[in-house]
Amino acid sequence: MNPPARTAKQRKQDTLARLENDVDTWVSTADSTGGTPYLVPLSYLWDGTTLLLSTPAASPTGRNLRSSGTVRLGIGPTRDVVLIDGTVETLEPGELPDGVGDAFATRTGFDPRELTAHYQYFRITPQRVQAWREANEIAGRDLVRDGEWLVAD
Amino acid sequence: MNPPARTAKQRKQDTLARLENDVDTWVSTADSTGGTPYLVPLSYLWDGTTLLLSTPAASPTGRNLRSSGTVRLGIGPTRDVVLIDGTVETLEPGELPDGVGDAFATRTGFDPRELTAHYQYFRITPQRVQAWREANEIAGRDLVRDGEWLVAD
Repeated sequence: MNPPARTAKQRKQDTLARLENDVDTWVSTADSTGGTPYLVPLSYLWDGTTLLLSTPAASPTGRNLRSSGTVRLGIGPTRDVVLIDGTVETLEPGELPDGVGDAFATRTGFDPRELTAHYQYFRITPQRVQAWREANEIAGRDLVRDGEWLVAD
Repeated sequence: MNPPARTAKQRKQDTLARLENDVDTWVSTADSTGGTPYLVPLSYLWDGTTLLLSTPAASPTGRNLRSSGTVRLGIGPTRDVVLIDGTVETLEPGELPDGVGDAFATRTGFDPRELTAHYQYFRITPQRVQAWREANEIAGRDLVRDGEWLVAD
């Protein structure tokens, strides 16, 4: 027996709390030729508006993020999910704003700037955000569309 | 401080136990035109060799699974993952072997055969399986390649 579906306002609060407090996200990308998905868990830094990831430039995820400029993220356990479709901006370590590289290292526990492999950073801007727990929350799962919250605070 | 990396044999045992005992998987697919990833959590039935999923035929995941015939699955929490690249066979409800539809319903808690929407079943055969917990387990993460276990029991 599932609890009743949350209100839209509650889902927004829970979603923002999860973005703030979680550390890892599932990162789903697709190659440019079609049909080949890739999926890995990565740590992220949330700044209130965007998520920052980092992965080797030569990895499948790095290649796909650069070539497609789009990503779908899954945060939370499978029965309490936040799904984010986002656009992607690629940043070299030297292009990070002051303090962001340090904040990323503190948050995620790894500092790509100290590694010998060529890592890039990827700034994700959510365009669509959905959140649900069980089947009774599929209706009303859209919280952000076209980059705008559908729900008032 | 992470525990030492598991042996290959231990990873295989843990992976088979997770496939047997978990209920949900992250399902990553890609559209046929390139660059557009899709990701949702779905429940599965494991039969010792393949995973069975079900989703509406008209959903993005259903379309992508049919058109590409390939999928990448993520099972477990982000710090104890099993990643599976698999090939996909599409089955209509009437094509399921005897007993499999009932086993799926019992395992996942939902029976697509009873729904009015057109659901299809998707049988995933793992071609590559990887498993790791933390960064110290990235080396040695490949357990199955080309559909064959690299590790003896």
